Amino acid sequence: MRSGTSIRPRTTHRIPMFERLDPVVYAPAGETPAGPLSAEDLERFERDGFLFYEGLLPADEVRHYREEPTRLLQDPSLLDEECVLREPRSNEVRSIFRVHRISPLLAALGRDRRFVEPVRQILGSDVYIHQSRINYKPGFEGKGFNWHSDFETWHAEDGMPRMRAVRCSIILTDNNEFNGPLMLVPGSHRYFVPCVGATPDDNYKSSLKDQQIGVPDRESLAELIERGGIRAPKGPAGPVLFFDCNTLHGSNANMSPFPRSNAFFVYNSIDNRLQAPYAARRRRPLFLTDDDCRPIRPR
Amino acid sequence: MRSGTSIRPRTTHRIPMFERLDPVVYAPAGETPAGPLSAEDLERFERDGFLFYEGLLPADEVRHYREEPTRLLQDPSLLDEECVLREPRSNEVRSIFRVHRISPLLAALGRDRRFVEPVRQILGSDVYIHQSRINYKPGFEGKGFNWHSDFETWHAEDGMPRMRAVRCSIILTDNNEFNGPLMLVPGSHRYFVPCVGATPDDNYKSSLKDQQIGVPDRESLAELIERGGIRAPKGPAGPVLFFDCNTLHGSNANMSPFPRSNAFFVYNSIDNRLQAPYAARRRRPLFLTDDDCRPIRPR
Repeated sequence: MRSGTSIRPRTTHRIPMFERLDPVVYAPAGETPAGPLSAEDLERFERDGFLFYEGLLPADEVRHYREEPTRLLQDPSLLDEECVLREPRSNEVRSIFRVHRISPLLAALGRDRRFVEPVRQILGSDVYIHQSRINYKPGFEGKGFNWHSDFETWHAEDGMPRMRAVRCSIILTDNNEFNGPLMLVPGSHRYFVPCVGATPDDNYKSSLKDQQIGVPDRESLAELIERGGIRAPKGPAGPVLFFDCNTLHGSNANMSPFPRSNAFFVYNSIDNRLQAPYAARRRRPLFLTDDDCRPIRPR
Repeated sequence: MRSGTSIRPRTTHRIPMFERLDPVVYAPAGETPAGPLSAEDLERFERDGFLFYEGLLPADEVRHYREEPTRLLQDPSLLDEECVLREPRSNEVRSIFRVHRISPLLAALGRDRRFVEPVRQILGSDVYIHQSRINYKPGFEGKGFNWHSDFETWHAEDGMPRMRAVRCSIILTDNNEFNGPLMLVPGSHRYFVPCVGATPDDNYKSSLKDQQIGVPDRESLAELIERGGIRAPKGPAGPVLFFDCNTLHGSNANMSPFPRSNAFFVYNSIDNRLQAPYAARRRRPLFLTDDDCRPIRPR
């Protein structure tokens, strides 16, 4: 092990992107795995790398979840300060991590069969929660997120071996073109873009605010957008977005007065438990990578 | 005159916005001034503070203008380096100023009757070019512009006495929701939002890259957006946008691979020539405020 501020470069020079080695939907060829998603849903997920699902949660339930962060922030005893990430300039809250551990309401939501069953159907195995989080973009304040693949970071910095994890985002506020909605590149999950650069120790402390390491090179990004375009699902609060761990996504700043927030759970297959990080000295802290890998029993 | 780094604060504490004192369309009440714009066009301009005009320039002409900046940048002898503004991080060109002085093609375009006649019709007088500019947002690079009213800056920093100027923007590239299109607040031109803070000397050197002084307070901005909404005209290259000097506007970063550019001319009424700046020690340099106030003879 070297001393110094970084270890095990992701790559030292640009390597062209290459085709994904792992399945997207983990089912024997030609078979539709049993579960709540239709064959058409699964085909769409396989093709685009995401599925935008409306009508899964009733409006009053969504409202209830939307108010939970305010309750959490009002009780400082609940929050480990490391789990709260603030905007670089204004100090407003940008994210709360590990919400499935600190909020009984969100812990129950993370085990909800409406999310867990589709994810088990896609991943073809039992799953556990790898990470959970609430993101905020306050009106006029919320900065964007650079384009990135979650898997690239989870592989390099957390030791996730394969592409066998799904993120499930609950859209808690109305999304429009002005409040910095999530943007996805359909089809990008079918390629792995090796990212140049070494991972500084404790990279997450800056990358969660403004990611510069582990972002794809512009040529690859332009090529993938050329092929698949960009999609930014919009509309009233409520929909749930399932997306593959390797789908490229990002978002712009919120220039409107309308706040934007979402809660998400990342489900990893129990057959894809973390190893030693592939390009960092040590795995990121527990608030980013839960170590309870017991299969979730949906309720 | 004081020494120090700033002079004549815009205001020292928040003053509520107040209704505009000047006309928007300078014509005797009930009379439609003669010119190419219809009574309906003028009503829309008066109501929204802008007019998005399609079909004014044929596609091949637009293409010709779009290539002009590349020609200008290839010949360093043409460009006074002060007229070229670069992105804070990447050094890519963000704006070229004073294009009506350095490019014969754009000088001719600035005198074009297709722009000058509608503007004379709106302002009810002869006009001259107060400023001209080409803006770029390179793919993945172009940063946004904070919400602001041009008039606030022109009044405070350049000594423009009244709201009697119109900007005419030619959209040179396709606009979509992902490449940081211009956003406007309809109806905002009917209010003046006093901006708190003193103007540092040579404020333009930073404000042109990231405006922090002379931006409206968030309460006023939220109230104006609440009333009028946000509009971001999109579509293929070619349209011309006429907008009042006091219409609030801004834009987000360009997160797409698609570059975005526009050229614009600001026409000021010859009855609204600049005075001493209202809240700065000295007027900004000539590349931002032309001193040739002779009426344009349209061609």
